[in-house]
Amino acid sequence: MTVAVVGAGIIGLAVAWRLRERGIDVTVLDSGEPGAWHVAAGMLAPAGESAFEQSALTRLLEESNDRWPAFAAELGVDVGFDDAGTLGLALTADDLADAARVWTRQKLPLLRPSELREREPALSPRVRAGVHAPAERQVDPRKVVAALRERLAGRIVVKRVESLSEVDAETVVVAAGCGTAALTGLPVRPVKGQVLRLRGEPGLLRHVLAATVDGRHVYLVPRADGEIVVGATQEERTDATVTAGGVHDLLHAALELVPGLAELELTETTVGHRPGTPDNAPLLGRLDDDSRVIVAAGHHRNGVLLTPITADLIAGLAAGFQDPLLEHFRPGRF
Amino acid sequence: MTVAVVGAGIIGLAVAWRLRERGIDVTVLDSGEPGAWHVAAGMLAPAGESAFEQSALTRLLEESNDRWPAFAAELGVDVGFDDAGTLGLALTADDLADAARVWTRQKLPLLRPSELREREPALSPRVRAGVHAPAERQVDPRKVVAALRERLAGRIVVKRVESLSEVDAETVVVAAGCGTAALTGLPVRPVKGQVLRLRGEPGLLRHVLAATVDGRHVYLVPRADGEIVVGATQEERTDATVTAGGVHDLLHAALELVPGLAELELTETTVGHRPGTPDNAPLLGRLDDDSRVIVAAGHHRNGVLLTPITADLIAGLAAGFQDPLLEHFRPGRF
Repeated sequence: MTVAVVGAGIIGLAVAWRLRERGIDVTVLDSGEPGAWHVAAGMLAPAGESAFEQSALTRLLEESNDRWPAFAAELGVDVGFDDAGTLGLALTADDLADAARVWTRQKLPLLRPSELREREPALSPRVRAGVHAPAERQVDPRKVVAALRERLAGRIVVKRVESLSEVDAETVVVAAGCGTAALTGLPVRPVKGQVLRLRGEPGLLRHVLAATVDGRHVYLVPRADGEIVVGATQEERTDATVTAGGVHDLLHAALELVPGLAELELTETTVGHRPGTPDNAPLLGRLDDDSRVIVAAGHHRNGVLLTPITADLIAGLAAGFQDPLLEHFRPGRF
Repeated sequence: MTVAVVGAGIIGLAVAWRLRERGIDVTVLDSGEPGAWHVAAGMLAPAGESAFEQSALTRLLEESNDRWPAFAAELGVDVGFDDAGTLGLALTADDLADAARVWTRQKLPLLRPSELREREPALSPRVRAGVHAPAERQVDPRKVVAALRERLAGRIVVKRVESLSEVDAETVVVAAGCGTAALTGLPVRPVKGQVLRLRGEPGLLRHVLAATVDGRHVYLVPRADGEIVVGATQEERTDATVTAGGVHDLLHAALELVPGLAELELTETTVGHRPGTPDNAPLLGRLDDDSRVIVAAGHHRNGVLLTPITADLIAGLAAGFQDPLLEHFRPGRF
């Protein structure tokens, strides 16, 4: 059997890797332009807001999170997988009320400011409360993609696919992120996110910080080499403009949380587009009207987190095994 | 006579241009790295704080400002010279008390918020008071340098001068900005400035805005093509790092002043170093211990403004005419 994967983002590459492991002849077609993975911070946070009312999505997120340690280990190189966990933080009383809904659901005990600063000495004294979520880890998506590309050496072709009719393969996996809409007609919309990268001496922060700061959600993801990723705006816009307001809002929240960040170098201002869907759950499965085509797209904010399980489920489907979990994520469900 | 000018910044190029107009054989030597002019906004504001107690500097600034219209016209191309004037602005009562000292000295009548917004509709309703300074204009330093380079085609040599002994000319003009210290031993220190550039539709702002915002000085310089320059931090540091705190502070003040800037693209984050001196007045004249060498450096925040008069005075000095005004700016005065 021959399989072509359209899209060499983190999802497409991981699917292709799992297909190859099954001995399937796979080719990855890609425009060469980096996708959302290049901007993404790589938080592995299965308890996000969007999954609240969707038990199937919650299960998918949690199962994929459980698969990350092995997935990272199998890649055989450092991909920045770090299990120090996440500190959830709230600055004001209103922020605490907002955050506490999620924390209660996660059954995480509230930490006092002194306990928080013991874990993370650089925190502002203004931080009112927080929790430690040991299961919310991080990975560096750029390193993951580099490792996957290495595994797929010789199987990636730079080619912009304008129509699936151009693709000569028995099975076509569309993992084209926001580009999936144009290729399949499925309702995938771009959700703009602006993300900054700072750089300083390693060690300023020890955990991922996921905070609500004066009503705004911000996260800080510290890498071992001193990089700190600051994200993210969430805008229902298609443009790729780094805006004065976006950069200001991210820096303002980050500095409120960790004043010592002021001295760090601002090394990157980037924009990515999350592939959103009507229910913001991914599209995983065959097209109703073209069974040659399998879709693995629409992961919205959870593309990195959902990479291991998506790769397993989609490679399995291409090989003939339909996991019951896929039923909830049928591309034709809308 | 042969003259070598060390430094192809805005000062060195303008001096060389004036020398050529006198028929002098001039060569400009430059490392090829852009200097402070590349970062500078190009405000022509002779009433700055630093001149308060220095009547000779005040006179130099005002005379140079008077020479700018002709200097720009002589260049024969568009260099962004714009005489809409500057709105001086104050956000809070404390800001007003601070700014009013300068405005009173300039004898500028205070404008009410409604009058300010009539002139500049995009201003925040929070702006408390302001003035219109019609004599404070702007020019685009990048365009000025491009025009001067055009005028000096064939006379500019890319060569990093490490010692003046390498320079073979009867007269050497050192216009090397912060690099002047190493070449001459004179007390020129770098004063770091971070500057941002935004871009949007032309017309959002009509004037240069020079404001005090919660105790912080910020200026917005709108170009005809929709670019808005936002400056500047003033840091006694030598590094060239764009910092999270610097960018935040500039954006924060700019957005407080003109909320509509939030939608604009952030196109550049840059760092320059103003060549400061012990009294922050320039060094203009011959070295006491080497009469072959004329210095034209140390212009601190006023390099662009002082370009026309510096070029006239230094070219004249090289040709044998010592203007009495130069006495106040002797390089050996410290």
